[in-house]
Amino acid sequence: MSSCYGKNLKLSIFGESHGAAIGCVIDGFPAGMAVDAAAVRAFMARRAPGSAPGSTRRRETDEFEILSGIFQGVTCGTPIAAMIRNGDAHSSDYSTLAAVPRPGHADFTQAARYGAAADLRGGGHASGRLTAPLCFAGALAIQWLSSRGVSVSAHVASINGRAISGDCGPDGLDDEARAAIESARSDGDSVGGTVACRISGLPAGLGAPIFDGVENRIASIVFGIPAVKGIEFGNGFGAASLRGSQNNDAFVACADGGVRTATNNHGGVLGGISSGMDVLFAVAFKPTPSIAAEQRTADIERRETVALRVKGRHDACIVPRAAAAVEAAAAVAAMDIMLDPEARAG
Amino acid sequence: MSSCYGKNLKLSIFGESHGAAIGCVIDGFPAGMAVDAAAVRAFMARRAPGSAPGSTRRRETDEFEILSGIFQGVTCGTPIAAMIRNGDAHSSDYSTLAAVPRPGHADFTQAARYGAAADLRGGGHASGRLTAPLCFAGALAIQWLSSRGVSVSAHVASINGRAISGDCGPDGLDDEARAAIESARSDGDSVGGTVACRISGLPAGLGAPIFDGVENRIASIVFGIPAVKGIEFGNGFGAASLRGSQNNDAFVACADGGVRTATNNHGGVLGGISSGMDVLFAVAFKPTPSIAAEQRTADIERRETVALRVKGRHDACIVPRAAAAVEAAAAVAAMDIMLDPEARAG
Amino acid sequence: MSSCYGKNLKLSIFGESHGAAIGCVIDGFPAGMAVDAAAVRAFMARRAPGSAPGSTRRRETDEFEILSGIFQGVTCGTPIAAMIRNGDAHSSDYSTLAAVPRPGHADFTQAARYGAAADLRGGGHASGRLTAPLCFAGALAIQWLSSRGVSVSAHVASINGRAISGDCGPDGLDDEARAAIESARSDGDSVGGTVACRISGLPAGLGAPIFDGVENRIASIVFGIPAVKGIEFGNGFGAASLRGSQNNDAFVACADGGVRTATNNHGGVLGGISSGMDVLFAVAFKPTPSIAAEQRTADIERRETVALRVKGRHDACIVPRAAAAVEAAAAVAAMDIMLDPEARAG
Amino acid sequence: MSSCYGKNLKLSIFGESHGAAIGCVIDGFPAGMAVDAAAVRAFMARRAPGSAPGSTRRRETDEFEILSGIFQGVTCGTPIAAMIRNGDAHSSDYSTLAAVPRPGHADFTQAARYGAAADLRGGGHASGRLTAPLCFAGALAIQWLSSRGVSVSAHVASINGRAISGDCGPDGLDDEARAAIESARSDGDSVGGTVACRISGLPAGLGAPIFDGVENRIASIVFGIPAVKGIEFGNGFGAASLRGSQNNDAFVACADGGVRTATNNHGGVLGGISSGMDVLFAVAFKPTPSIAAEQRTADIERRETVALRVKGRHDACIVPRAAAAVEAAAAVAAMDIMLDPEARAG
Repeated sequence: MSSCYGKNLKLSIFGESHGAAIGCVIDGFPAGMAVDAAAVRAFMARRAPGSAPGSTRRRETDEFEILSGIFQGVTCGTPIAAMIRNGDAHSSDYSTLAAVPRPGHADFTQAARYGAAADLRGGGHASGRLTAPLCFAGALAIQWLSSRGVSVSAHVASINGRAISGDCGPDGLDDEARAAIESARSDGDSVGGTVACRISGLPAGLGAPIFDGVENRIASIVFGIPAVKGIEFGNGFGAASLRGSQNNDAFVACADGGVRTATNNHGGVLGGISSGMDVLFAVAFKPTPSIAAEQRTADIERRETVALRVKGRHDACIVPRAAAAVEAAAAVAAMDIMLDPEARAG
Repeated sequence: MSSCYGKNLKLSIFGESHGAAIGCVIDGFPAGMAVDAAAVRAFMARRAPGSAPGSTRRRETDEFEILSGIFQGVTCGTPIAAMIRNGDAHSSDYSTLAAVPRPGHADFTQAARYGAAADLRGGGHASGRLTAPLCFAGALAIQWLSSRGVSVSAHVASINGRAISGDCGPDGLDDEARAAIESARSDGDSVGGTVACRISGLPAGLGAPIFDGVENRIASIVFGIPAVKGIEFGNGFGAASLRGSQNNDAFVACADGGVRTATNNHGGVLGGISSGMDVLFAVAFKPTPSIAAEQRTADIERRETVALRVKGRHDACIVPRAAAAVEAAAAVAAMDIMLDPEARAG
Repeated sequence: MSSCYGKNLKLSIFGESHGAAIGCVIDGFPAGMAVDAAAVRAFMARRAPGSAPGSTRRRETDEFEILSGIFQGVTCGTPIAAMIRNGDAHSSDYSTLAAVPRPGHADFTQAARYGAAADLRGGGHASGRLTAPLCFAGALAIQWLSSRGVSVSAHVASINGRAISGDCGPDGLDDEARAAIESARSDGDSVGGTVACRISGLPAGLGAPIFDGVENRIASIVFGIPAVKGIEFGNGFGAASLRGSQNNDAFVACADGGVRTATNNHGGVLGGISSGMDVLFAVAFKPTPSIAAEQRTADIERRETVALRVKGRHDACIVPRAAAAVEAAAAVAAMDIMLDPEARAG
Repeated sequence: MSSCYGKNLKLSIFGESHGAAIGCVIDGFPAGMAVDAAAVRAFMARRAPGSAPGSTRRRETDEFEILSGIFQGVTCGTPIAAMIRNGDAHSSDYSTLAAVPRPGHADFTQAARYGAAADLRGGGHASGRLTAPLCFAGALAIQWLSSRGVSVSAHVASINGRAISGDCGPDGLDDEARAAIESARSDGDSVGGTVACRISGLPAGLGAPIFDGVENRIASIVFGIPAVKGIEFGNGFGAASLRGSQNNDAFVACADGGVRTATNNHGGVLGGISSGMDVLFAVAFKPTPSIAAEQRTADIERRETVALRVKGRHDACIVPRAAAAVEAAAAVAAMDIMLDPEARAG
């Protein structure tokens, strides 16, 4: 129903893939932060199509315009609105999406929700393109977090089921991953993968038990990235195969009076509250559903099964670009958590 | 910060494990539903300690009292409040939790958040006991969903890394799982596992892209269950190892004019919106951190490492009881989603 | 739909007048505040029936029980739940409320909303009795505010259209007001009045323009008190009759470097944000609709007009008791506002 | 903190008076409504400067651009974003607002909240100009409400303390009001007034007791209009001077089986729930604080009192333009209320 996220830092994302513009409103961003616009652009470029291996050759205009909330390069404290014009759209590629829905896409479900008025062109509001404003918001959050000693980083952890080796290039992939992507592309197919994310520097004592935990809040935003099908913290699903004596992390008293854990199987969150250790989580991305190879689907009006070839220019693997979106989502969640009201009566 | 969940059906959970009572307020539950109190009790018994293999021998009083919102056995439309008195608590078992935190528990993190005033006895607000009011709310939601043709079921899918065979008993376990739990217990240890959940009958067209998707909303509540470390929908992390041609689900036009998918790799959600197929998800539970065997931890005040034996009566495996909590969480989320305002201008 | 209030301090109120209990959950109350229980009781006594002139002779049990969130007299940081048992109810007095609704009451509207399942006894969820948990929450908020140098006070400003003179007794009324109330009672009638409230010590710079302003947030909770029909800040409706040169408050630079206004026509809020001056507002209460004199109303089923005499024990004027509820509402709102996340990037 | 409103229809307003653009995002607007763009423009013209008597001669560009959520003139169900470019701004008029705050304006309070980064030009985010996106949203809500048989109308009720006679012109004013405004202008002064609003056709049974009542929700948004200092429903403050026998509205059984009240002193809301009668409320506007005559204020840095003449082009009375904003706010609130989830389990 709603494309809003957050309790303190409220992020509202708008736009359809082939509408006039996409963008966001960020409400609650504190005043007085000097925005490094070049860093925002550099961050958004990590997500933009065309750079990463396996990415679509479609050219998108990801140049943002700030509409409000930033004056003379500094945040004003009032809502920050930014938009990105949609450009190079070939809407004719998508003319029969409601009648002949593409497998794995949100054509059918959006038509079920919104009816004949749904704007399905290019995936509409469910398009991966909507991660561009998320990345804009994330880039600002990263800068704010940085001033508080908190950093966020996400990278590709596996492609098509094989872990990325340490020996990866600037694209975050190793030779095997690149080969897997290229092989899929040449077959008119696609591959999935996982992204690992780390939030460092988050103080102990943030979040809460039950519904407002660090994990709940990160999961809630991460599932906003298209194609995400799973999330796990620390040992995650692996913990389900362990014994308590293997999975428990011993607390260690540090010489400086602090406390840490000897290991970080818990991924930085215990009882919904940050432990001061790095928050570690992994995200599963399904293979992009847009594949060139012929598929079977339904012609709904004619009630018959038909062969479908999805035209257009598509990513054979969106995971390298998605890493930026995961990083952005983690940053927005971490900032929202850090802005929680004080926990003590003082 | 907050122990509230939901947009339309607002669930607020309160209580500490060893305080006067635990309970919940359910705001937004429609008027006019006749409550089957026996079914509520039967559902809550699935979660209660003492029944499932590996569960604690501690006796808890899970008998609820309805304080408001239900009159003559029928929901009034006003907030439903219920409480469960805390009984058989041995608080002396937990006297030094802040100074010598138990590994894997929320003692340290709650103390970091709330300071000296934290009520850590029995795990405080982060205790698994708080799933009792969740199950109360879930039991009501299940009845409401049932009247709409929606059913929810959760069962143990694996224990200690091994899948439950089809040949399981009324406790949801097979012989191997029982043996794994018993072996852990005799070693003073514990085991984790996974729970699989299915929501059947949810109509196509519920939820939304981006932040209010079906997956976001289910994940957000499921991480409110203590010991949950991961969640995945449909093929989940497995999808990350597949190609698009393997993971995409072909749409099929049915004779009755409906549309379904030939397979359900997507787990009933595409672009955040329900597809009409069963919503399928799995949840990873870490092994319960309370183990009898000696562990290492920090004595924070003395800044030294000490040996710790966690006393008290604990579950060697909470997964069988946790299945009820997952089912309850799924039901609350599904009901909240079904209560979303209309999507069409009509 | 919802009986919840607040962004940071979330107050959820439950209960029907003649159900098992009424109460509240206060989520987000900071940890570590020692609660002065005697002061809470003394505050709640100001609202309780039987003490104030014109109040009902019905005896209510307003003794609260704390269910969670306070341990050894100190707030834990976790949700504070409290309940008040309903006692001395004469439900037979209210048997035909849906069919023959009382003028000025919420019998008809609750039946329209909730249908046959509505619990209308004693006014149900819309009863003035629900201000008891509001006052409980307000009493805690007053204590927290006091530790921050903020105080809240509300008093009766007028009864039946005549201002209370400075020469009022401990009941907050003067002789004329008491006479007006007594006259109404002897006529089987009732009178309305206004309450004035002052919040002192609120720092400048809280709140926000547009929807999250101090005025919006106070108004939003104050209309939660039954019988409230209007609210105004500073000069309020009087300002509408003034010129700008009369209504504007000149800023004055103080010797200590601070800034104040020479007058306080604005009531402490400009552009939704606190100015550091006292927040001043007034609230209009309609005369209590329960009057002994015969009235005309509809017998809905028989589609005819009938004469009605409202039986039971009722207040001839609820304004003296309502002052405590206004003070409580203001305190909850002020605390919620003070808990807003920081406005500066720092 | 936040410039968002609504539970089902979420309205987020952004922009500063002299920034790049102002605008809004409307999330939750149902799909399938054909938008009458000419009617939107006509409605917005009622608020725009230059048309109404006493309005500023400053020319603003209120032409909106729709960025998302409307495709081929029909709402898509996804967030509707619209923006209005800021044009004809003379920022040099406002260069010392933080140091020498204008009486009655939000210069001082915004500087207190946001610090040196506050964008105070033209009133910043607190400017009356921000009612333009509110009117955009209201215009859409009015069209949706109309399709449901609900209409909203607001008009000037009084200027400078004198009621508008029935004999008013298309500007909603009578000769005396126009004279009062002109007199103030010629004195370099301004006048306030009141606006009356009526919502017709709202069914009985919407809203809820306590915090989510119709009155709470309308008040909460109406105080988002700059210069509003009070709101009252039905008899409002007048009810405080009445007896119950005078203020109670008798229910009447209608021949068609319906129920109405013989009078409408309650203003269409009882116990927070709509009665089916017209919702009636009045709003007090203070005189616009921008006056040409010399005023006293503080030079904060120099800690001295100075004389100030507010330059620029200002309204001598904003009430005629504000009526459109009240109507818009009422429409957004009414639509949000009508989108509440069903109240019955049925």
